[in-house]
Amino acid sequence: MKQLPAALAPPRRVLLGPGPSEVAPSVQGALSHPTLGHLDPWLLAAMDEIRAMLRAALGASSDWTLAASGTGSSGMEAVLANVLEPGDSILVGTCGYFGARIAEIAERHGARVTRAEGEWGRALDPERVRAAAAGKRFQALAVVHAETSTGILQDLAPFRELAGELGALLLVDAVTSLGCVPLDCDAMGIDGLWSCTQKGLSCASGLAPLTLGERARGKVAERARPPSAWYLDLELLTRYWCGEHAYHHTISSNLLYGLHEALRLVLEEGLEPRFERHRRHGRALAAGLEAMGLELLAPEAERMPQLAAVRAPAGLEETRVRRRMLDEHGIEIGGGLGPLKGKLWRIGLMGAGSTPRNVLLALAALRCALAAEGFRPRGDPLEAAGAALVEAP
Amino acid sequence: MKQLPAALAPPRRVLLGPGPSEVAPSVQGALSHPTLGHLDPWLLAAMDEIRAMLRAALGASSDWTLAASGTGSSGMEAVLANVLEPGDSILVGTCGYFGARIAEIAERHGARVTRAEGEWGRALDPERVRAAAAGKRFQALAVVHAETSTGILQDLAPFRELAGELGALLLVDAVTSLGCVPLDCDAMGIDGLWSCTQKGLSCASGLAPLTLGERARGKVAERARPPSAWYLDLELLTRYWCGEHAYHHTISSNLLYGLHEALRLVLEEGLEPRFERHRRHGRALAAGLEAMGLELLAPEAERMPQLAAVRAPAGLEETRVRRRMLDEHGIEIGGGLGPLKGKLWRIGLMGAGSTPRNVLLALAALRCALAAEGFRPRGDPLEAAGAALVEAP
Repeated sequence: MKQLPAALAPPRRVLLGPGPSEVAPSVQGALSHPTLGHLDPWLLAAMDEIRAMLRAALGASSDWTLAASGTGSSGMEAVLANVLEPGDSILVGTCGYFGARIAEIAERHGARVTRAEGEWGRALDPERVRAAAAGKRFQALAVVHAETSTGILQDLAPFRELAGELGALLLVDAVTSLGCVPLDCDAMGIDGLWSCTQKGLSCASGLAPLTLGERARGKVAERARPPSAWYLDLELLTRYWCGEHAYHHTISSNLLYGLHEALRLVLEEGLEPRFERHRRHGRALAAGLEAMGLELLAPEAERMPQLAAVRAPAGLEETRVRRRMLDEHGIEIGGGLGPLKGKLWRIGLMGAGSTPRNVLLALAALRCALAAEGFRPRGDPLEAAGAALVEAP
Repeated sequence: MKQLPAALAPPRRVLLGPGPSEVAPSVQGALSHPTLGHLDPWLLAAMDEIRAMLRAALGASSDWTLAASGTGSSGMEAVLANVLEPGDSILVGTCGYFGARIAEIAERHGARVTRAEGEWGRALDPERVRAAAAGKRFQALAVVHAETSTGILQDLAPFRELAGELGALLLVDAVTSLGCVPLDCDAMGIDGLWSCTQKGLSCASGLAPLTLGERARGKVAERARPPSAWYLDLELLTRYWCGEHAYHHTISSNLLYGLHEALRLVLEEGLEPRFERHRRHGRALAAGLEAMGLELLAPEAERMPQLAAVRAPAGLEETRVRRRMLDEHGIEIGGGLGPLKGKLWRIGLMGAGSTPRNVLLALAALRCALAAEGFRPRGDPLEAAGAALVEAP
């Protein structure tokens, strides 16, 4: 090539979008620890610790708790491609972009998919999903716990009940919920679940924590043929991660270092204090946004605390506001996906990013960017947010 | 959990196995650069530089040159799952573990696979592969350029000719060849190729560079249905990497920083000097091994320079020797795979690891470990290696 690019010196953004989220300094540093081989006994021992910490963070006693070597979406495909056989029926509750992704991936792997479609920006109504099932049997029922595209947090209990009625495994997308809101696979009766590293765990992306419970493992064991997805084959991944450590792929030790440290920080803080932190800062952010006269997409009772989906006021070019926040203040927030493209901002306070300082920073920068685009806020976001931050939980 | 694991402090190994290889300090440091969002304009510009450097390193002019977000094996699956449709016929030349893996993955994706099996430890005989084709037509012919399980380097020219006769696309596994030996996709007429980051490029694992030429892209474009592999769908990956940057998955900025720096180092050194460096050190290592009375699996003319496959002398427990090198000297070498398990050592001098110092270190440590296990070397490996190191190229 004509001219060699210069060495990279990436800017330091504050990551307040839908992910990746802010990375804690010790996690960032861990990524540069000395690389180790994928069969090094030292690394395999560290992987055992990762599995133990993942089980604790997920409330999952299953041995089949590990991380696939890809982003959260690879975890989604891993669970679907392994649990479902061609011709199996799956009922997918969709009220956003990621529910739709579940349905698409399940279809690609040959499943017969019934979509129970809800409104984007509202939680799924379990009765509507029950009606879509129309009394038929399904091998699986899948829902998104925290729908990243709309800011909705889904109560899983009614879907556990429905899965029981349908004779279905309950599969859950926890990409945006792990590390931010309560999640207890055993207690909630979750049969299969996938997540990511770069949101609530505040690590670099590239690994997909997942777990399969006993019934889902049984379903995988009874397959007539292995899944087409060789790279994401959970029998092979389990043989590598657990037990005999049979070579499958060259796992990235550096990503594992980051995940190990990120999980340590989660458990050191404690799950309940961490969730309370997310709730407090989520409430404060919402109070500030609403004080400015902005409208959140989801009704209060259905919102997740770690990501606010905010309607862009009519007449504003939302990308200009985001670009200002990035260029003028070095702050990343997200835009809308699918039918919400151009209509939404998504502001995340996830993991290490969920701090009082970032509540203020997001509001202050958004206020400036909005003003520069001619939008006049109704009230003072910082006063409202400040008041919410000092409220008793 | 009862007790939280301590923060990791991984040991510093010298990585002289089949990969991961030694990582250059600037690459290791780049992994800890500040994390960026997957749609950050700054990151997208860095990804354009990565694509340009990959094209230069691969001799590939194709726009469809990018990195999948998984290890080298995910690159193998990406190319096979996208290029092949169910019912397509593929002829796979296998003379080792990774040729067999190509065949398995192609089968999983519904292709009709004809295996042309060669001897493990020898290069494929093109005539034998031609005979296996039995005059039939194939959509693809796949071979491994550098077979990591046996140390064989395959001359690709006869397979390009055979692919032409069969009307087949030529698909090449370059997992262990990129960055170590000459590879020129355009000049060699390669239609599709995948590689990894953690061998010849000396980066952490987790990304899979790949390229599809024009004919292979046409084949993908004509598919009746998208591939089952959603995470590795090359149409979706190309829409994200190139052109409109449509969201597909949350790529790991930290792995991209490492790959960017690794490619910079490759091109800064220059391809031909880099290949010559690998040849020189590979010859010196082989000279030292043979001076000790050890036997390389592959005949000299068929060996790759970046990885020596060495037969473990009869009566020795090969794992004990490897374990001694790891525990007593902090040096990782590899064992055998498949039918060669327990019979082989694999010593890699790849990328940043291909240095005169590592030639000596590998030989000295192997000699010590062998002696401790009761094997008496025939001659002095260091004298032979030292002589080879100062020989004119």
